[in-house]
Amino acid sequence: MRTPEQYKDSLKKMRANVFKFGELISDVTTHPATRATVEGHAQIFEYALKPEYMDVFTTTSSLTGERISRYLSVIRSPDDMMANARMKRRMFNLTGTCTGGRCVGWNAINAMYATTYDMDEKFGTEYHSRMKKWLSQAQKDDITISGALTDPKGDRTKPPSKQDDPDMSLHVVETKDKGIVVKGAKVMICGVAAANEIFVLPGMGYSQVDSDYAVSFVIPRDMEGLTIVEARHPSDLREGEDGFDNPVSMGGITQAYLFFENVFIPDERVFMKGEYEVTQDAVMSFIMPYRSAIGGCVAGQGDVMMGAALLLARANGLSDKPFRETLTKMSINNETTFGMGIAAAAMGRKHPSGVWLSDPLLANVNKVLVATLPYETKVLAQDIGGGIAETGCMPSYKDFKDERYGHLVQKYLKAASPAEERVRAARLIEWLTVGAGIPGCMHGGGSPEGAKLIIRSKTDLEDKVKLARRLAGLDDTEQKE
Amino acid sequence: MRTPEQYKDSLKKMRANVFKFGELISDVTTHPATRATVEGHAQIFEYALKPEYMDVFTTTSSLTGERISRYLSVIRSPDDMMANARMKRRMFNLTGTCTGGRCVGWNAINAMYATTYDMDEKFGTEYHSRMKKWLSQAQKDDITISGALTDPKGDRTKPPSKQDDPDMSLHVVETKDKGIVVKGAKVMICGVAAANEIFVLPGMGYSQVDSDYAVSFVIPRDMEGLTIVEARHPSDLREGEDGFDNPVSMGGITQAYLFFENVFIPDERVFMKGEYEVTQDAVMSFIMPYRSAIGGCVAGQGDVMMGAALLLARANGLSDKPFRETLTKMSINNETTFGMGIAAAAMGRKHPSGVWLSDPLLANVNKVLVATLPYETKVLAQDIGGGIAETGCMPSYKDFKDERYGHLVQKYLKAASPAEERVRAARLIEWLTVGAGIPGCMHGGGSPEGAKLIIRSKTDLEDKVKLARRLAGLDDTEQKE
Amino acid sequence: MRTPEQYKDSLKKMRANVFKFGELISDVTTHPATRATVEGHAQIFEYALKPEYMDVFTTTSSLTGERISRYLSVIRSPDDMMANARMKRRMFNLTGTCTGGRCVGWNAINAMYATTYDMDEKFGTEYHSRMKKWLSQAQKDDITISGALTDPKGDRTKPPSKQDDPDMSLHVVETKDKGIVVKGAKVMICGVAAANEIFVLPGMGYSQVDSDYAVSFVIPRDMEGLTIVEARHPSDLREGEDGFDNPVSMGGITQAYLFFENVFIPDERVFMKGEYEVTQDAVMSFIMPYRSAIGGCVAGQGDVMMGAALLLARANGLSDKPFRETLTKMSINNETTFGMGIAAAAMGRKHPSGVWLSDPLLANVNKVLVATLPYETKVLAQDIGGGIAETGCMPSYKDFKDERYGHLVQKYLKAASPAEERVRAARLIEWLTVGAGIPGCMHGGGSPEGAKLIIRSKTDLEDKVKLARRLAGLDDTEQKE
Amino acid sequence: MRTPEQYKDSLKKMRANVFKFGELISDVTTHPATRATVEGHAQIFEYALKPEYMDVFTTTSSLTGERISRYLSVIRSPDDMMANARMKRRMFNLTGTCTGGRCVGWNAINAMYATTYDMDEKFGTEYHSRMKKWLSQAQKDDITISGALTDPKGDRTKPPSKQDDPDMSLHVVETKDKGIVVKGAKVMICGVAAANEIFVLPGMGYSQVDSDYAVSFVIPRDMEGLTIVEARHPSDLREGEDGFDNPVSMGGITQAYLFFENVFIPDERVFMKGEYEVTQDAVMSFIMPYRSAIGGCVAGQGDVMMGAALLLARANGLSDKPFRETLTKMSINNETTFGMGIAAAAMGRKHPSGVWLSDPLLANVNKVLVATLPYETKVLAQDIGGGIAETGCMPSYKDFKDERYGHLVQKYLKAASPAEERVRAARLIEWLTVGAGIPGCMHGGGSPEGAKLIIRSKTDLEDKVKLARRLAGLDDTEQKE
Repeated sequence: MRTPEQYKDSLKKMRANVFKFGELISDVTTHPATRATVEGHAQIFEYALKPEYMDVFTTTSSLTGERISRYLSVIRSPDDMMANARMKRRMFNLTGTCTGGRCVGWNAINAMYATTYDMDEKFGTEYHSRMKKWLSQAQKDDITISGALTDPKGDRTKPPSKQDDPDMSLHVVETKDKGIVVKGAKVMICGVAAANEIFVLPGMGYSQVDSDYAVSFVIPRDMEGLTIVEARHPSDLREGEDGFDNPVSMGGITQAYLFFENVFIPDERVFMKGEYEVTQDAVMSFIMPYRSAIGGCVAGQGDVMMGAALLLARANGLSDKPFRETLTKMSINNETTFGMGIAAAAMGRKHPSGVWLSDPLLANVNKVLVATLPYETKVLAQDIGGGIAETGCMPSYKDFKDERYGHLVQKYLKAASPAEERVRAARLIEWLTVGAGIPGCMHGGGSPEGAKLIIRSKTDLEDKVKLARRLAGLDDTEQKE
Repeated sequence: MRTPEQYKDSLKKMRANVFKFGELISDVTTHPATRATVEGHAQIFEYALKPEYMDVFTTTSSLTGERISRYLSVIRSPDDMMANARMKRRMFNLTGTCTGGRCVGWNAINAMYATTYDMDEKFGTEYHSRMKKWLSQAQKDDITISGALTDPKGDRTKPPSKQDDPDMSLHVVETKDKGIVVKGAKVMICGVAAANEIFVLPGMGYSQVDSDYAVSFVIPRDMEGLTIVEARHPSDLREGEDGFDNPVSMGGITQAYLFFENVFIPDERVFMKGEYEVTQDAVMSFIMPYRSAIGGCVAGQGDVMMGAALLLARANGLSDKPFRETLTKMSINNETTFGMGIAAAAMGRKHPSGVWLSDPLLANVNKVLVATLPYETKVLAQDIGGGIAETGCMPSYKDFKDERYGHLVQKYLKAASPAEERVRAARLIEWLTVGAGIPGCMHGGGSPEGAKLIIRSKTDLEDKVKLARRLAGLDDTEQKE
Repeated sequence: MRTPEQYKDSLKKMRANVFKFGELISDVTTHPATRATVEGHAQIFEYALKPEYMDVFTTTSSLTGERISRYLSVIRSPDDMMANARMKRRMFNLTGTCTGGRCVGWNAINAMYATTYDMDEKFGTEYHSRMKKWLSQAQKDDITISGALTDPKGDRTKPPSKQDDPDMSLHVVETKDKGIVVKGAKVMICGVAAANEIFVLPGMGYSQVDSDYAVSFVIPRDMEGLTIVEARHPSDLREGEDGFDNPVSMGGITQAYLFFENVFIPDERVFMKGEYEVTQDAVMSFIMPYRSAIGGCVAGQGDVMMGAALLLARANGLSDKPFRETLTKMSINNETTFGMGIAAAAMGRKHPSGVWLSDPLLANVNKVLVATLPYETKVLAQDIGGGIAETGCMPSYKDFKDERYGHLVQKYLKAASPAEERVRAARLIEWLTVGAGIPGCMHGGGSPEGAKLIIRSKTDLEDKVKLARRLAGLDDTEQKE
Repeated sequence: MRTPEQYKDSLKKMRANVFKFGELISDVTTHPATRATVEGHAQIFEYALKPEYMDVFTTTSSLTGERISRYLSVIRSPDDMMANARMKRRMFNLTGTCTGGRCVGWNAINAMYATTYDMDEKFGTEYHSRMKKWLSQAQKDDITISGALTDPKGDRTKPPSKQDDPDMSLHVVETKDKGIVVKGAKVMICGVAAANEIFVLPGMGYSQVDSDYAVSFVIPRDMEGLTIVEARHPSDLREGEDGFDNPVSMGGITQAYLFFENVFIPDERVFMKGEYEVTQDAVMSFIMPYRSAIGGCVAGQGDVMMGAALLLARANGLSDKPFRETLTKMSINNETTFGMGIAAAAMGRKHPSGVWLSDPLLANVNKVLVATLPYETKVLAQDIGGGIAETGCMPSYKDFKDERYGHLVQKYLKAASPAEERVRAARLIEWLTVGAGIPGCMHGGGSPEGAKLIIRSKTDLEDKVKLARRLAGLDDTEQKE
């Protein structure tokens, strides 16, 4: 398994194809726009090598029997799925934010592991063995893989082939001798700057007429024809600053737009091509582990919010006592999203390929909770932290150090702790709640509205009406069942 | 395993010692005050014999290898604990309410199974083998056991021995040759009228000076010296009425007060006597499975609320569509409490005795959720149901059938369904939300405030502060860990 | 102005036409089913005579200049409307529940005061002077008037004339020389047993084809042809019991069904007949004051819940301190619904007739708040009160006094207060939260869904989009406005 | 009254004493860090001159009878106070955010108008006439005044004189012939860069030993000895960018730290000096109007959030329908905080000086609502807006316009609207919810915890217990009251 240094070296060697602010980023490991997320992802390698964290961050490959990064494993049991939620919670603890350049890729691997199995069973294709081969090598090379369900979908009331612009979803534009050529885009992909490869799968279910859109493959991040533009996020310009106004250097979230301009994919990296019949299942297989594990993510950030709030309250010179009820509420929020992910894992089922699929009802309930509870936790962190934390209402690092009046800033910001400690704690809360540390947990992995649709479809209302009729004495036949 | 009829016969044979409204109830299986809860409990026996429900309601005894009621089993694994939550959800589906005369006893068995093991290890006593013997016989006889953590505790700022009245907690008043004599009371015990035996254990942790209060035992419900007075509950007088104003006959909840006036307990039924050191653990071992499984209970009642609300909306002549969002919210509430119980089971640990103990943090988070979410679900059921459901605002059954004006009542209550169907649906919602079907889920098994205390003690705040310090760059030592 | 005794005497003299449980109630002032609500309404007369409450309960007639009951006044200013909310809060304080037999009638008077004015302006009718004449006399006689927006409406997707049964809304079936004959029903009318007269107006807007349904009038409660059946409510059978299990004797809520079987209404009591064009406005004029003042009602009950919860907590032997946050939350809920009613009054407008109309947006926002916040307040009251309050889990009064074991009940229910005080406090919470004291605040005066429809129609979304476009720099024309 | 240009000219003429990022800002009207807030404040002058807005933005001076800016008026009636809430709502509509450089000063004027009156009555001083003189001139000159309750208070468990550093609250360090010299700081003062003068009053109640801290005065913003350092806020570096990534140019919020280094205040501008006895009242008189009007502020921003969310949803190609319930919820939140401010105004009382004081209970309830409801509104705006709005997940303006790949960004961001319109709408939501437009509504004007303390003190719990005792039949004396 790779060391953090080997991981970073691998990124350095890649072709520069990532842009931000109109600038081509020559080295993602050192450029201000991307270095923090690379540092965050590097911690995965660092902790995987620590004996006390090995159980969380690594596991045994079901393909090779070797010890591998958990992020490259096939999830085969409830325990594997719970370990997923635990690892993500831990990663948020260690980085303060999302390391999405690995988790989405991992979901993609598992979704397509099951889907390639189904395709081979159904159509006699050889995608599954092809995928196993690639995955064994990926595990051996210990690479970082981000994932992309393709968008942007254009006018959502119409299928891809009915769009004014056929590129509104990614599609095959040419079939060549030893591969395919694809065109389109992925908007909003997390952590791609920290990835070695990108795993692509369809973003929704398609029908026959759209079979060119039924395509899945994996490519190096620096593939010819692929252009990557990093999106903005709150306070992103601070990342180029010195000092502590951008308080976290061990983690950071980036989101990017991918533009595929006639990219060639060799056959051995293609895992679906035209099999529209399985696209809906592929999406669902992707969604379930994602939506159960995301509860661990937000709980992990919630842990940090609790700690930061308490740290600042103490720096403000206040005792813990008045915040007890509020901290308990934060803890309840954290454990509820974490726990619902555990429950979705426990209530799941095994796919014939061996992949463990979380329970869709509980996973989607969790998605809705993730779209509400962490927001309350944020507000509570700001409530405890006081005015300086709420909007980061403190002079800048430069002002803090200014020769003319920096001593005044420090004099009046000092409370129970030295001014710098108080400022750092407040900047951390700012970063977590209105700054660069905010993960896109409302819409990441799909919107809460989409989750509610699945909840509806998985809630058997007629069965519940039957229960009511039986109890109300309304159905003799029912009563005798 | 017993049939429902055998179960009811066993109750009929017992000594009459249950009172309500100043009246001694001669037969709990037929008296209006208790028959509904007996019918509810009888369904456990009915469904245990159905092949399609066998997995839910029965299991294999870890003591004898025989098939037994799950309610008499030792919970030995996460799966056992999850089956607990599932069974309780199903029982609420089948009865509309709580069958507490079994579940509390079951928790008591498991708590004392672990505690007797600990005592024997620590003190060289023989409680554990004594308990196994009794339990094997109980499993064989397939009896119904309710449970009692003794109260009422009096002035809660003082321990039992400092109370003005020494009987404020149950205690040993005399040790005899072959047994002990106890005095005191249990206030609010659920479903005791439907039980064959009662399992008693301490209601809180005691210190040495209160060792007379450290006592646990199991007795027949009709023991000499034990007087039982049933408490009231909403609309309880309707239980003596004919007609459909008390809509549910297949289930009902009762709660009683037990008065022990120098009751003799033979030694073979005594499982603790003076070992104050383990009382705190006994209580905690009781609380954990209780507070995780209770999420299944309220989810099960929530299922019925959803069904009843939709049934009534349709009877009111409305389509399902405007209620979609509300029903989804109800479903989210149900699955959240159910799921958190599953998670507490999954994250638990094995006690050396073999008992599986749910995770205390998640179990207590669930207790707090159970004290809030089901109340929202109730309000939503009333929201959907309309005015007639909200407070049961319909003329009585007698008026419905009155010769003079009953036809008018029926004429004007008819909507999309016949008047009777609409009334029965509305009466069911009334029963569930402001009537006799309400389980005491706020304080049953302890108050939410108590749960918050445990949440606090199980939430490692200092660890979270450390995470925050590390991210904020505040602790060089921490960063190098 | 009348004394309470004169008021009760007036009820005694009326023809018996109220039924419950198949029984004709010969005297509503003494029968268990109705006496409590009569006592509640009697307090209005009692307090109107107390100098310190005169400002709340009485005002000066705009018609005669005499001092009259506020419940019979024309609401002419924001201050009048705020006094409405304050009086209702006070009445809930004094009775613990709703005295709907006056407030709905008062709303009806005001709605039709405005509507008759409009009709006379528009159609040259003489309804307004007719109404003034009747109202002057009503003020002089100081009578109690309940109000009825007619239902039950049948299949709500169809107008009255398209119903299978033409009687599904109240309608004129015959026009006679000196009056009209009406047929139909009103389901769920509050406090009618305590009323001298009943004011009827249309329950929704009608079109021309349904002009027979456009009818409004006022009649004595004991009019020939009118049959009244009281509906049930939670624990209503306790009202016939002795002792303190039905703890409140100074107030009580009743709801009834009215059946009009060809009732003759003399012309001088008819205030609308066929003018379908104004029916929608009449309903809206009714709804606005109702939905703003109802916030005072639930705040008044919330006051009692706070007091009862604290009373019981103290009786349980607990200090106030741990409940501080919860009590503050209850107070916030109370003041929010009360305050929103005040705001709706302040933001209202004057109708040409002189009637003050509350702001429809704020009034309907309050209706939605009333359908949520008081439910939370209830749950908090149960939270503070503990297990005995939650479902009234205490032995009955008969058991409390039983010669054989009543001393045991009392011994073990005693805590910081004597057992009876503790029981009475707990019974009060039971009565308020799951008992006979529950007002129908979710659907009373229309459902929250209906309120949301009005909120939508009164929220100018396009104006808000304009504000956003302007700020986002999207509309040059807008920017230059 | 001044034109926007005259207002800006007055700022240009002032001495430069505002710093940010270590840089002295030579012209606050053009510097990126302050120009947006100046533009926001300039709109007050612009709209005050528009006939259709005159009633909102101006009023008649109670001192001179001249038409003046409402922001310089003495609030003398409920209507004045409601106009306050309405003006603030409108200002948030026009600027998208807070123009705190006027509202806090206005509150300070009113608080000290009442307090100087009290001091003159009590101590025979002449502060009130001195203040009237200054205020008349301020009204005539139509100046902009920000306000400062002095902090930072240091260790909050100790009074100022017990602090290690005596400067932890602002205090008089020397009394001179014609004035006083003060030292200390104000941390977090809103909009001071847009102000002509600053009104200072005590930040809490003091006792005799701290009488040097009992000081109030008003000074020009550019006074000698006063140094101002602007604090950071989310994404503040974008304010120096071109393009639409910082979408709002018509408004902006700034918060600063003031450092008073032995500043001389001439006597005619001193309104309190040593009268510690009135400091508590001064603070309370400041808080009440602030906490009721702030509901208008957040409602005004909520209006923009609704508009922006709907604008973006339409740009995303979606119909309004699925968002109806969510928009209604947002509207309810907006109107609840707005309405509670109106209610606090309506229920207020007149101070002997003529100042109208809002009701403290309702005003503080509103403060707590303002600390919760707008946060939910934000989350709902993000929910409707979709992933690009949540964290502003779109490439930068530079990337949008890039010659190499800008066309790709635009191609794939186009949906129902051109890409730029969609981006601007999303950037506006970002700005409002996680960007530079966030007002500090949680802690601005004091924390919600402080508000809860006042709610507690203004909630008469014993009176509520009395109500409960009376209803429960527990107090014969009470019943006979």
